[in-house]
Amino acid sequence: MNMELVEKLDCAFEDMVVIRRYLHMHPEVSFKETKTAQYIQDFYADLGIPFQANVGGNGVVARVKGAKPGKTVALRADFDALPIQDEKDVPYKSTVDGVMHACGHDGHTAALLILARTMNQLKEQLTGEYVFVHQHAEEYAPGGAKPMIEAGCLDGVDVIFGTHLWSLIPFGTIEYKSGPIMAAADRFEITVQGRGGHGANPHQAKDAIVAASQLVVNLQQLVSRRVNPTESAVLSVGSFVAENAFNIIADSAKLAGTVRTFNPEVRDLMENELKRVIEGTCIANDCTYSFKYDRGYPPVINHKLETEFLEKVASEVPGVENVQESILHMIGEDFGYYLEEIPGTFFFTGAMPQGEVFPHHSPKFDFDERAMLLAAKTLGLAAIQYQNEE
Amino acid sequence: MNMELVEKLDCAFEDMVVIRRYLHMHPEVSFKETKTAQYIQDFYADLGIPFQANVGGNGVVARVKGAKPGKTVALRADFDALPIQDEKDVPYKSTVDGVMHACGHDGHTAALLILARTMNQLKEQLTGEYVFVHQHAEEYAPGGAKPMIEAGCLDGVDVIFGTHLWSLIPFGTIEYKSGPIMAAADRFEITVQGRGGHGANPHQAKDAIVAASQLVVNLQQLVSRRVNPTESAVLSVGSFVAENAFNIIADSAKLAGTVRTFNPEVRDLMENELKRVIEGTCIANDCTYSFKYDRGYPPVINHKLETEFLEKVASEVPGVENVQESILHMIGEDFGYYLEEIPGTFFFTGAMPQGEVFPHHSPKFDFDERAMLLAAKTLGLAAIQYQNEE
Amino acid sequence: MNMELVEKLDCAFEDMVVIRRYLHMHPEVSFKETKTAQYIQDFYADLGIPFQANVGGNGVVARVKGAKPGKTVALRADFDALPIQDEKDVPYKSTVDGVMHACGHDGHTAALLILARTMNQLKEQLTGEYVFVHQHAEEYAPGGAKPMIEAGCLDGVDVIFGTHLWSLIPFGTIEYKSGPIMAAADRFEITVQGRGGHGANPHQAKDAIVAASQLVVNLQQLVSRRVNPTESAVLSVGSFVAENAFNIIADSAKLAGTVRTFNPEVRDLMENELKRVIEGTCIANDCTYSFKYDRGYPPVINHKLETEFLEKVASEVPGVENVQESILHMIGEDFGYYLEEIPGTFFFTGAMPQGEVFPHHSPKFDFDERAMLLAAKTLGLAAIQYQNEE
Amino acid sequence: MNMELVEKLDCAFEDMVVIRRYLHMHPEVSFKETKTAQYIQDFYADLGIPFQANVGGNGVVARVKGAKPGKTVALRADFDALPIQDEKDVPYKSTVDGVMHACGHDGHTAALLILARTMNQLKEQLTGEYVFVHQHAEEYAPGGAKPMIEAGCLDGVDVIFGTHLWSLIPFGTIEYKSGPIMAAADRFEITVQGRGGHGANPHQAKDAIVAASQLVVNLQQLVSRRVNPTESAVLSVGSFVAENAFNIIADSAKLAGTVRTFNPEVRDLMENELKRVIEGTCIANDCTYSFKYDRGYPPVINHKLETEFLEKVASEVPGVENVQESILHMIGEDFGYYLEEIPGTFFFTGAMPQGEVFPHHSPKFDFDERAMLLAAKTLGLAAIQYQNEE
Repeated sequence: MNMELVEKLDCAFEDMVVIRRYLHMHPEVSFKETKTAQYIQDFYADLGIPFQANVGGNGVVARVKGAKPGKTVALRADFDALPIQDEKDVPYKSTVDGVMHACGHDGHTAALLILARTMNQLKEQLTGEYVFVHQHAEEYAPGGAKPMIEAGCLDGVDVIFGTHLWSLIPFGTIEYKSGPIMAAADRFEITVQGRGGHGANPHQAKDAIVAASQLVVNLQQLVSRRVNPTESAVLSVGSFVAENAFNIIADSAKLAGTVRTFNPEVRDLMENELKRVIEGTCIANDCTYSFKYDRGYPPVINHKLETEFLEKVASEVPGVENVQESILHMIGEDFGYYLEEIPGTFFFTGAMPQGEVFPHHSPKFDFDERAMLLAAKTLGLAAIQYQNEE
Repeated sequence: MNMELVEKLDCAFEDMVVIRRYLHMHPEVSFKETKTAQYIQDFYADLGIPFQANVGGNGVVARVKGAKPGKTVALRADFDALPIQDEKDVPYKSTVDGVMHACGHDGHTAALLILARTMNQLKEQLTGEYVFVHQHAEEYAPGGAKPMIEAGCLDGVDVIFGTHLWSLIPFGTIEYKSGPIMAAADRFEITVQGRGGHGANPHQAKDAIVAASQLVVNLQQLVSRRVNPTESAVLSVGSFVAENAFNIIADSAKLAGTVRTFNPEVRDLMENELKRVIEGTCIANDCTYSFKYDRGYPPVINHKLETEFLEKVASEVPGVENVQESILHMIGEDFGYYLEEIPGTFFFTGAMPQGEVFPHHSPKFDFDERAMLLAAKTLGLAAIQYQNEE
Repeated sequence: MNMELVEKLDCAFEDMVVIRRYLHMHPEVSFKETKTAQYIQDFYADLGIPFQANVGGNGVVARVKGAKPGKTVALRADFDALPIQDEKDVPYKSTVDGVMHACGHDGHTAALLILARTMNQLKEQLTGEYVFVHQHAEEYAPGGAKPMIEAGCLDGVDVIFGTHLWSLIPFGTIEYKSGPIMAAADRFEITVQGRGGHGANPHQAKDAIVAASQLVVNLQQLVSRRVNPTESAVLSVGSFVAENAFNIIADSAKLAGTVRTFNPEVRDLMENELKRVIEGTCIANDCTYSFKYDRGYPPVINHKLETEFLEKVASEVPGVENVQESILHMIGEDFGYYLEEIPGTFFFTGAMPQGEVFPHHSPKFDFDERAMLLAAKTLGLAAIQYQNEE
Repeated sequence: MNMELVEKLDCAFEDMVVIRRYLHMHPEVSFKETKTAQYIQDFYADLGIPFQANVGGNGVVARVKGAKPGKTVALRADFDALPIQDEKDVPYKSTVDGVMHACGHDGHTAALLILARTMNQLKEQLTGEYVFVHQHAEEYAPGGAKPMIEAGCLDGVDVIFGTHLWSLIPFGTIEYKSGPIMAAADRFEITVQGRGGHGANPHQAKDAIVAASQLVVNLQQLVSRRVNPTESAVLSVGSFVAENAFNIIADSAKLAGTVRTFNPEVRDLMENELKRVIEGTCIANDCTYSFKYDRGYPPVINHKLETEFLEKVASEVPGVENVQESILHMIGEDFGYYLEEIPGTFFFTGAMPQGEVFPHHSPKFDFDERAMLLAAKTLGLAAIQYQNEE
């Protein structure tokens, strides 16, 4: 029967491409992806597959029930696009100005839709129940996963699997990793408030640029001194703005940055130490400050057993030539919210295109569409074989 | 005769106020002050006083020759305004949107015009020759003094005097100072060029914000360590701009700032050490940079003998109650160019208004108009009495 | 037969304790451990086990050949002590002033000697050959492992196993880890050379304390910005010396520190970036410098197959209750040299004492002696069972 | 009569040299200068000039009363030496190991003794009274001036003059300066207390070297940002000690340094801002600290009228070829205490030797002995002519 799934998916590859390219030409940014949600609903409605719309926002959840009772397995694909201008020169280029599927979510969606259709065709032979989670708004915190979970998309679900097509991993490769695989991605904003004045008279002012510069320098020691060196953490100040005439002492300076961690304790530590260094540096400079720390997605922490299971499944998927351990990714993903609730694993599907390779979020990003097929097969086989796990 | 000058000036005070208020209502920014120049020309033309127009730009130079030969004494007043919106609530408020005499140059001009008219009336009794230098563009480097000198405004001149009405000095006070009194004011711009990247992956980028922040911190030691502590110097970074998304590593950062010095050797030292610290900091951060250092006006360095002479004269001016040594001013003035050519001195005339006091360049700046009279008297008496100096 | 080994070791436990305590009372520091080497030689000589003395220094290598041909397996124990004053209050306290077995090498040696004696008793039943590597000078770079290898101690050896008794891991636990387990530990020394002077006249001097302080601050960004955040690295400046009168400008400052890494590329990166930051910081401060970077031991990088094998063996050792993955240790070990030559693995044997626990290198360090028995069993069973590996 | 003083001093020059060389060969450090004090007492006793011994310590005060009543004028010379090893190769080299008159106080004393003797010879012709203040312990805070004043050495005194022979000013020159001439010299000590640890595990420690390095860097902005740039101030950290093994995290770091200022408000500002920066930097680094700030001598602030008087007198002293304004000296002098009590002025007497010139406190320091004669003449003439001042 597994072979039947594989064969049917092989036959449906052209359909996947058609869907992906349609979505690619009609991208919508996070939290605004209503037409895409409608497209997904129509797809399921046409097939008579029961689904729920507007789950936690624009989310769509479809369900296929096998003939025999068994475990309930969720498979997730995200479907939002990015506010990036498509600079590719292909027939399926984005038709929406300034919006682009530059991260492969179109591919995730096409793969999951065809997989759902195929499993629906095979449902008489299937054990258990399959939940197809089409998630909106992965790209923009606070994301769609959380409200979808709150709306019940995981109710009764035993396990969840998800994948990301990845243009930097060779086609034919599946990368798994037990434990942390993608980072918690937090955001902070700091305003250092000094007192402006004439550049000729520093003693009458409180120089916010000097204070904020010291702060940036001092913050380097959070990672170098305060975090256990066997843990991973990043603190980057991405923006520093104190725009004035040249002969002025800056009244204030605005910093914005990101913190990336895998371990919740390290995350707490970074936030606390950030506050400490801001506090101390501002005292030393006789400045005040405002500080805002917004926690983004939690880290994606794969469950050990489910990851070992996935590794085993992946190594038998026709077309997969290489199954290997993933590196840690410092970038974020809201799939972590699902894994805080139930067991599961998130893996990478190699999708490196032939020709020039561009990273995700590049205006020239593209991927090898055959990777959609490998993703669908791996997710589908994992879902079905999971019924046999103890 | 000196008493006659004083009495005549006293009688002409109302005219000064009229002229000053007219100019105040019709301000023009530096290098665009053509109507003001025309006003000055018309004034001299009406009186039949010979003058030269368009001297080194919009400058106007009038000459009054005494009956007996003697020394040639120049008196200077500047006449440009500032790009500031007048926020005062007075009848003579600026009528030009966004332009304002917020530094008192209207008063300088009114005082000098009336002084010239008065001395012209007394010319039969006067010894020597008097050159009235109406200078454009003091507020904006490269300024009007330099081109006016190049156009010959100091030719044959033995000595020059100038004053600044000052709202922070009590009315009735004259402040002199031998040697440096106002600073050289230079401007620099630095671009630190790193390599942008994703905030999650600092090792793939070169963080321009960290490099520029280190630079700002390191630059503090120019004044604290490299300049002789008995000399004055200021380095202020007024602008720091690296505006990006929070989750980015900055590709570049732009700094702009000012250097203030009195001593030419210290000025050279600051420029050289600035370059050294930029160079080293960028090497340490594996970044490159561009660096532009524009020398502004030279310091105003008053000549010793002429300052002692002025101090003596000032103490005898009717209405002057207090003659004292000035502090050093870290701000700039292009009067320094004149003093590089010939002897002379520049002094401050107290013009603190009754009621609330605002600093120069404030949108609510104003001054006690009676200070114009003291300025005119002091300049006039200095000019006439200088004929008696050896 | 494996059971026979285990039983014989159990019976010999008292002998182990006797040997360990004798060694504990007679410690010798690295490269001076001649009496300890003689003790080991005498032990083998008394048993008629062939051995080689003075291998690469004070090293001793004994060999036990089984009846049937097979693989050659090396087992390693180090036997040097530390220049630390023993502050324990036990009957077997060090008798040598200022020298102490504060790291457990006495236990390693006792366990290996008794294991060698036991395997020699069983040699008629054994397959393959067993090499007992008694290594001197593990505590002090450049260490004893390298010269022992150069002297041929690994000639003909197929695999090597080693362990460290660890007072911070509960007794009954074995910790393994594939890949890096202990760090490369390098040492650096920097002298920043400025120009001394009187504290009142900074402009006549070049302040080495300011330059070196900037250097320490700037070095924080090696770990925070230049190393891949998913890699581990540490740079610590442990010593900063510029001792002068309070009213002086420091002529020079001496820094010393350590760099810890697991990945050879990161190690190279750290050394190169360290040099870059020193260079740039000294240029910015108009100082010169000397820089010495001494590479210590390489990281201990366990081989995958041998580690999986060891994990399997350990989980069957009588008395071992817990087999788990080790954390990364930022400290160093010269066992890494062996693993650069041949396959093998290095693991930790839990030896936490009852009562108060002190870390390694503490003057009150001690361990649970029963851990020696578990270490001997694990090493012995690994050696024998390795004959069955493909 | 003035000429008589000058002629008598000229004749006594050889005696001055004899006394100076004797003192040079028998130096005593601050607060231990008992034999020197005895030498001075004997000198006065032999001449029958009344004196008081043990004034505020080892101080000696002699008095010569003129025939006619008038003002009481004090003249001060200090007589302590330094803990420096004499490295000169001259017949009058110090005979005391490790102690040396490396600052010229031997010359001050010789000049004042001979001047006292000479004025005593002329006393019948003199008006007023003359107080010869031989002060101990100028070199070492809290100094001898303060206790001598407290012991009454200025009682009834109208004015005080003092001078310093200066090896860096050409012989034949007198340098005066109204207002501040020598700085307040304060001392501070800071201990930054972190928490020690192993260099491999920074997260378990609090790195006192990083904290103290940040502190040194941050302190640069006291002078660069917080002090009025037209005022002079110096802060130098002269000593930074955190001596440890290279592979340690420093538990604590000790800094010591000096602050120099002329203006009491700037002095207060520096102390307060120093505290602020220490506080903030330690908070940022989660460290604690101890901070000790010891005020040394006040600045030497010459009185205006007395300085103008001295300038006039000096320009008429036979042998003085050049009278000029002094630069500001950032070094300290406890003469400032006298000027806090009564009018007076402190000036420099050029004493640059022929041949190689060494700065004060150099082990090869020496001066042109003829400068003693000019110092004596200037002090003597100032004292006598001051009787004629209103």
